[in-house]
Amino acid sequence: MPDQIKKEIAKKAVSLVQTGMLVGLGTGTTAHFFIEKLIERHRVEGLQITAIATSEKSASLAREGGIPVLDMDAFTKIDLTIDGADEIDPRKRLIKGGGGALLREKIVAASSTEMVVIAEESKLVKNLGRFGLPVEIVSFGSRATLSKLYDLGYSGKLRMKDGSPYVTDNGNNIFDIRFDPVCLNPTQDQEKISSVPGVVETGFFTGIAGRIILGFHDGRVEIFDNLPSSLPFT
Amino acid sequence: MPDQIKKEIAKKAVSLVQTGMLVGLGTGTTAHFFIEKLIERHRVEGLQITAIATSEKSASLAREGGIPVLDMDAFTKIDLTIDGADEIDPRKRLIKGGGGALLREKIVAASSTEMVVIAEESKLVKNLGRFGLPVEIVSFGSRATLSKLYDLGYSGKLRMKDGSPYVTDNGNNIFDIRFDPVCLNPTQDQEKISSVPGVVETGFFTGIAGRIILGFHDGRVEIFDNLPSSLPFT
Repeated sequence: MPDQIKKEIAKKAVSLVQTGMLVGLGTGTTAHFFIEKLIERHRVEGLQITAIATSEKSASLAREGGIPVLDMDAFTKIDLTIDGADEIDPRKRLIKGGGGALLREKIVAASSTEMVVIAEESKLVKNLGRFGLPVEIVSFGSRATLSKLYDLGYSGKLRMKDGSPYVTDNGNNIFDIRFDPVCLNPTQDQEKISSVPGVVETGFFTGIAGRIILGFHDGRVEIFDNLPSSLPFT
Repeated sequence: MPDQIKKEIAKKAVSLVQTGMLVGLGTGTTAHFFIEKLIERHRVEGLQITAIATSEKSASLAREGGIPVLDMDAFTKIDLTIDGADEIDPRKRLIKGGGGALLREKIVAASSTEMVVIAEESKLVKNLGRFGLPVEIVSFGSRATLSKLYDLGYSGKLRMKDGSPYVTDNGNNIFDIRFDPVCLNPTQDQEKISSVPGVVETGFFTGIAGRIILGFHDGRVEIFDNLPSSLPFT
């Protein structure tokens, strides 16, 4: 997907933002383009907003662009969060966390009046899980936690970085579950996986997404309240 | 309850430990007496064990007594964990976490072939929750997480220490839920509370306790596989 489409998606998304809003900023490449457009509207039009960031990376980008980034600990409600997704199913259930920020992304999205998802059409799937499910786990006892997940029938691997387990902004690790070939019952899997002591959060986002902004290969960008079955779910 | 009873409970508990075992050490005053008895058996009888600790405090005590404390990250299974409880109901469901170590305690207990609970009879309750339920929450977005718990009908307060939110060994905070007057459905409450993004773990321990060693006001100490209804649940 060329960056041009991501820029068009970002442009559509930024049109939903109004002066005075507290905006939740996602993490990842699509969110990156959105933050750039937000900065552009701030500079060109004088759009005045404050932001909450789901990662240090997104926070830095916004701050450098002149957007005040506030501490999430002071708020209970965010007006609008714009974030990407790794996978989107026909019922607007998502998998997120490929970028390793799923816990903060979920806290921010779940605290928002609306979470608007921005994605290319390639993220549409009939069933979630084809590309796996990131699960954030406490590093204390991580091996025992993985062993319990294996016992429940899940396989996958601990995400690594430079030869050591990847550490999230919250000091946890990520276990990437592999489904064979997909996850058929996200609600049930969410419940089973979450029941394991040591599991902090999964990458399933169910009942959280509001509108979806989709960019298509032919250059179109459209906003959907719900996803029609005619869309190219693969 | 005088310390003498706690020492008698600890003495009974330590008789379950055998050379070669990997032993999970709890946290709190009753667990403290158990660790002291363990050190005594190590010194006097040459009992050789290795240990996993649920807190820095318990780890230090054991190490100073000559017991090797290992890193939980290297293990998937612990032979025997001995730990206290804040409340015990007739079905051996527990509430733990008054000491602030619930997450590690739960990971260790759930990874053990058996968790033996050591407690005085005053910990027996008809219904859990009379003294509240500690819930470990991520500090990022803690205010939003509390707000969601309030929306679900839970009240309570953030645990404080020296004027700031108490920080667990895992860098999280503790929200102490108050029930009015008790929790009537721990399974349902566990599910509701855990579903909130930002909640890491609750102090409910269900389906985890094995034998229970109880100390009575009259000086008796008994081991129970299951708890007879004739016990003084209050």
